[in-house]
Amino acid sequence: MAKTLNVGMIGYKFMGKAHSNAWLKADKFFDLKARPIMKMICGRDKAGVSQAAFRWGWDQFVTDWRDVVNDPTIDIVDINTPNDTHAEIAIAAAKAGKAILCEKPLAMDVKQGKQMVDAVKKSGVVNMICHNYRRIPALVQAKKMIEAGDLGTIFHYRARYAQDWIVDPNFPLVWRLQSKIAGSGTHGDINAHIIDIARYLVGEFSEVCGQMETFIKERPLPTEQGGLSATGSKKMGKVTVDDTAMFIGKFKNGALANLEATRFALGRKNGIQVEINGSKGSLYFDFEDMNRLKYYNEADPADRRGFRDILVTEGTHAYANHWWPPGHIIGYEHTFVHTVADFVNAVVDKRSVQPTFADGLANQVVLEAVEKSAQTRKWVKI
Amino acid sequence: MAKTLNVGMIGYKFMGKAHSNAWLKADKFFDLKARPIMKMICGRDKAGVSQAAFRWGWDQFVTDWRDVVNDPTIDIVDINTPNDTHAEIAIAAAKAGKAILCEKPLAMDVKQGKQMVDAVKKSGVVNMICHNYRRIPALVQAKKMIEAGDLGTIFHYRARYAQDWIVDPNFPLVWRLQSKIAGSGTHGDINAHIIDIARYLVGEFSEVCGQMETFIKERPLPTEQGGLSATGSKKMGKVTVDDTAMFIGKFKNGALANLEATRFALGRKNGIQVEINGSKGSLYFDFEDMNRLKYYNEADPADRRGFRDILVTEGTHAYANHWWPPGHIIGYEHTFVHTVADFVNAVVDKRSVQPTFADGLANQVVLEAVEKSAQTRKWVKI
Amino acid sequence: MAKTLNVGMIGYKFMGKAHSNAWLKADKFFDLKARPIMKMICGRDKAGVSQAAFRWGWDQFVTDWRDVVNDPTIDIVDINTPNDTHAEIAIAAAKAGKAILCEKPLAMDVKQGKQMVDAVKKSGVVNMICHNYRRIPALVQAKKMIEAGDLGTIFHYRARYAQDWIVDPNFPLVWRLQSKIAGSGTHGDINAHIIDIARYLVGEFSEVCGQMETFIKERPLPTEQGGLSATGSKKMGKVTVDDTAMFIGKFKNGALANLEATRFALGRKNGIQVEINGSKGSLYFDFEDMNRLKYYNEADPADRRGFRDILVTEGTHAYANHWWPPGHIIGYEHTFVHTVADFVNAVVDKRSVQPTFADGLANQVVLEAVEKSAQTRKWVKI
Amino acid sequence: MAKTLNVGMIGYKFMGKAHSNAWLKADKFFDLKARPIMKMICGRDKAGVSQAAFRWGWDQFVTDWRDVVNDPTIDIVDINTPNDTHAEIAIAAAKAGKAILCEKPLAMDVKQGKQMVDAVKKSGVVNMICHNYRRIPALVQAKKMIEAGDLGTIFHYRARYAQDWIVDPNFPLVWRLQSKIAGSGTHGDINAHIIDIARYLVGEFSEVCGQMETFIKERPLPTEQGGLSATGSKKMGKVTVDDTAMFIGKFKNGALANLEATRFALGRKNGIQVEINGSKGSLYFDFEDMNRLKYYNEADPADRRGFRDILVTEGTHAYANHWWPPGHIIGYEHTFVHTVADFVNAVVDKRSVQPTFADGLANQVVLEAVEKSAQTRKWVKI
Repeated sequence: MAKTLNVGMIGYKFMGKAHSNAWLKADKFFDLKARPIMKMICGRDKAGVSQAAFRWGWDQFVTDWRDVVNDPTIDIVDINTPNDTHAEIAIAAAKAGKAILCEKPLAMDVKQGKQMVDAVKKSGVVNMICHNYRRIPALVQAKKMIEAGDLGTIFHYRARYAQDWIVDPNFPLVWRLQSKIAGSGTHGDINAHIIDIARYLVGEFSEVCGQMETFIKERPLPTEQGGLSATGSKKMGKVTVDDTAMFIGKFKNGALANLEATRFALGRKNGIQVEINGSKGSLYFDFEDMNRLKYYNEADPADRRGFRDILVTEGTHAYANHWWPPGHIIGYEHTFVHTVADFVNAVVDKRSVQPTFADGLANQVVLEAVEKSAQTRKWVKI
Repeated sequence: MAKTLNVGMIGYKFMGKAHSNAWLKADKFFDLKARPIMKMICGRDKAGVSQAAFRWGWDQFVTDWRDVVNDPTIDIVDINTPNDTHAEIAIAAAKAGKAILCEKPLAMDVKQGKQMVDAVKKSGVVNMICHNYRRIPALVQAKKMIEAGDLGTIFHYRARYAQDWIVDPNFPLVWRLQSKIAGSGTHGDINAHIIDIARYLVGEFSEVCGQMETFIKERPLPTEQGGLSATGSKKMGKVTVDDTAMFIGKFKNGALANLEATRFALGRKNGIQVEINGSKGSLYFDFEDMNRLKYYNEADPADRRGFRDILVTEGTHAYANHWWPPGHIIGYEHTFVHTVADFVNAVVDKRSVQPTFADGLANQVVLEAVEKSAQTRKWVKI
Repeated sequence: MAKTLNVGMIGYKFMGKAHSNAWLKADKFFDLKARPIMKMICGRDKAGVSQAAFRWGWDQFVTDWRDVVNDPTIDIVDINTPNDTHAEIAIAAAKAGKAILCEKPLAMDVKQGKQMVDAVKKSGVVNMICHNYRRIPALVQAKKMIEAGDLGTIFHYRARYAQDWIVDPNFPLVWRLQSKIAGSGTHGDINAHIIDIARYLVGEFSEVCGQMETFIKERPLPTEQGGLSATGSKKMGKVTVDDTAMFIGKFKNGALANLEATRFALGRKNGIQVEINGSKGSLYFDFEDMNRLKYYNEADPADRRGFRDILVTEGTHAYANHWWPPGHIIGYEHTFVHTVADFVNAVVDKRSVQPTFADGLANQVVLEAVEKSAQTRKWVKI
Repeated sequence: MAKTLNVGMIGYKFMGKAHSNAWLKADKFFDLKARPIMKMICGRDKAGVSQAAFRWGWDQFVTDWRDVVNDPTIDIVDINTPNDTHAEIAIAAAKAGKAILCEKPLAMDVKQGKQMVDAVKKSGVVNMICHNYRRIPALVQAKKMIEAGDLGTIFHYRARYAQDWIVDPNFPLVWRLQSKIAGSGTHGDINAHIIDIARYLVGEFSEVCGQMETFIKERPLPTEQGGLSATGSKKMGKVTVDDTAMFIGKFKNGALANLEATRFALGRKNGIQVEINGSKGSLYFDFEDMNRLKYYNEADPADRRGFRDILVTEGTHAYANHWWPPGHIIGYEHTFVHTVADFVNAVVDKRSVQPTFADGLANQVVLEAVEKSAQTRKWVKI
């Protein structure tokens, strides 16, 4: 009797795992307006996708994404494929009238992104870009406080997304380090996240000035491309993406920005450190402690002011009451469940919720502006 | 073709939710020796259990636990019912030759616990007590290090399990605060956990001396029992369990113990702070930061010694490689998935893994010794 | 024209250094009611005391403490000698009408302590026991908040004083590890501090139950006593004091106590971790971060409660405004300056300020009760 | 018999207090090659300087700095006056052959700084710029580790100096907010510090690109200038310095830089957060916890890597063994004592130690480059 929505998911690897888990769990923990049915999974490798289908309980699998998009029983298309395929699939899905959830980044460039936004506008389908970090309870709490004016006028947004998985020069030249496949390196992969958080919490950028760097210029080719051979010889290839990207800039509302992304910060595994300073208070967040939000309130009595360490697991915190009692933390994967839950309700309501394809496009615009700035060594308006 | 095991779960509320989620996810993230099938769920309230069955995807539901235990197709009985029913169900399940996973505490008292241990011994069934915190990756890492001798001789085990949900004197007299239903209060509910962690990491206790206290002696009866009425009058009832329980003592290996459990520590939501000091190093853990383990290594060079803040999300950490990349944390519910995963393999191997019913019993022995000590105001040998 | 007070300090080693520094600095940073003059320093070793006098700028030095006590120009006697000499010197100083600042512990036992208290009562001299930690700004802030009722009814006082300097079994049998010289070990040396903090912040103990342990029973004698010889042979001696002492208990106001002191916690250098939980909030303090006080306020809005990390360096914090701007921290030695500053003013006012000799005695009473409890393995009333 | 050096200190306010304390304490805690004698203090206000002389025990006071510089008995001139007077005094002192300790910033601009460097070079006097943070034991430890190669190749230097004392728009237009007096705002005052730390730990900058901002453009004039009058009317004045200054850039050794200074980060009292990432490890420091250094060592075993929390109070840590036992922390003022101690020995050795006037000049060069970059909105080479 309950309304259902048939989901077709395209792509089944890392993000496919995160999304499958989300589709599996969303209606167990949230009272959704419709029950998502894990109907169809798609991947080019038959053996791989059939295993994934079996493991996750997808009803059927196909190897051509068109079979998903064209299937009249499918209500939702969930795109987890490599970046260079997003546009084609999403535009086709929009034409077919499907609600679309698309992994970030939206597109390979601004031009392509615009086509996608046009497509969903034209067809009127519900669309969402999967910037799942927007649904970390601590960041939702931050958003709520900023919108309520609890931080006052924002002066500073300062963020760093730091990882350390390619510091070793012998780490091979995987596809993520080749620009023709990955588009960009650290910048598009993780700077994109803290740009999105900035837009979510503070607002639109007005101008940026950045620098990007590749610390290790050559790396051994992966074994399958002739590198790291059994005989021990290493064939090297050129690294064609950035190892780090950072920029300073300004928001339209006058706040200043300082963002930095790197894969060369040993000890920072998935550190997303965000600090926001306003005229009434400050917030601090680190993704490695994602259940916590630090909050400084200038209105506290003078002798007892200090950053509060808020464990965002209370019933009053967004999403948290759907999970476990206070103090019982949640993790990375839950952000996808929250995303899927909100998306399902949006599909039933026939009204997109943030972040939409338009947000994905806006993100791309900032990314490109920073790249242009780094290349031209000039400030770039947005 | 893959081997399967049919699961019958009895009890469907808080722990039923945690266990359902674990049964749902275990074979998605772990390559189990058999696939658990969510066959049957049981609860006394038909409406409630049918909803739970539908929500979680259990194949069928029943309202009498005997229907689970006696069903010849059921391989595993998972007991999540109130404490006073564990013994009867478990003994029946053992007689029926089922593998048994039982929520903690094992039994209402030592005597009952012994009967349960006898029953599983006699029938030879695989049995496990669900002390899920043993499968927090950080504590598994601690165990590994202690067993490898990295801490040397243990001097101190010091732990506190602190919550704050009944500090308000107007919090009603729920069943957990009535001894006839709950057995004990803080002691059996949460002290039991840090006793189990102590036994897991350090060894057996040899003697204890404790005190227990009820800070708030009377509370409003719950609405359904005449309290907190619409007219605003409050009918009070007597709190018959402890609000806090603490004890000092000794382990058989000579280490000293200091354990404390309380529901009266404002700001501590589910804080399980454990410190272990040995002759070569120290460990510190807090459940509110369950993805981290602090480790001090005396063998580090003198000018650079300090507690290391290990983010236990690396591929080399137990269970972690089944989830997400380094730095992408997991949460409370994952400990149940780990437990179920190991249990399923144990069932296939026909060999129980720790913690077994015997561990549950040993825990009960310590709990009773502390209670006796608090009543008699004397040291009690174990 | 400014009033002056002549100080005679007896003992010039570790505490003599801390006190000399305090006498030197007190009137530079505080506007005292009188200027302390570093008049006379006393030590048994002429070479040593003369060097100390020169280094610190004491006007003169003597080798017999009677020369200090009997000098009519001396206003203040500051006792930093070994514990077994406190009583004799203090009683003589009291008879001579001197104001007395005495290092902790007050005496070797309760009996001796009572004589000292009687002596200062009889003579009416201003007296103070140097429990300098009472003047850590963070603890003064804690006191202020507790007295104002901001914590409500206190439920728990939980403290641990942990060090690690004798974990190595080759650490020699210094005087602090010999009971005839040191009285007790960890207990009198550092448990005494957290007992004093308990009495300062929470109130009087009513009963205690403790255990004490010596982990390493024999140690090499110090070189000068024949141990650790040039030939490498080690002559061993028996450790006659406790390595750790811990106790549970109750305060007269109903709060529960859990205190532990140890020299066997690797990585804890001078960790004094104190947590106090009340009906309205909680406080947490660690001496290794002595400029900070953590405060949880239940009255904060439900979605933004959390321990505040108060940096106790603001102008509104006790003593802090005498030092440096906010965020510029102070250290261990400053607590002695605060003590001396308050003591000087007390001398001018002819009115003792806490902690007095009576506090030193009360501390001794608790220490002895815990020792008796550990020996008899029984609860002891206070 | 001990060698002595006569000190003449010019300026007696905030820095005069910090320096007086340092001169007072240096030879009490360090075995210096000469004993500094607090001979002469100088200030323009006779009442003020005489009080300071009395309070701190300076032998005499004068009101004209020339009387210090020209006094043949003076060995050391210590300059703590407003920035616009440094050059004149220092050049005169150099000509008079005095050893010179000068507060930062060295000069008003690069041109002036060069004259000062020339003067000390020509006269050959020992000279030092008081960048006291270089002698925080944690940063000395960082330096030692970086020099030993323990961090490998440096990739990132990332620092933020954040305060919050002028967030309130009613905070008056003090001299520090007026460019004609202060030179610059946040930039010269505190960005200068993290630039110096960068040069100390990482090396020379090669190029920079920055932005500076004044968030609050007008403020009430101070009462003495007609603002904040008794009648409540507020006369406003224009803020002519920056509230925040940040820049990205590059070091000559290829590392990337990201520095930010602000007085608009509520809750950050004197936060100097520095992170350095290299190919073998990372370091993190925060001045608000100045006794700690966080260190990540990639060479640690894979399952136990994590940032170590090193409490830099051990005997093996620079300066620490002169103070108190491990775990007994020191504070802000101690950095001045360390500076003075090293300076005194340098004077005896007739050989300047870092940071010299040349370092002060190099710092100024970077400051000006950032300012130029912010004005021209272009990258600037150094």
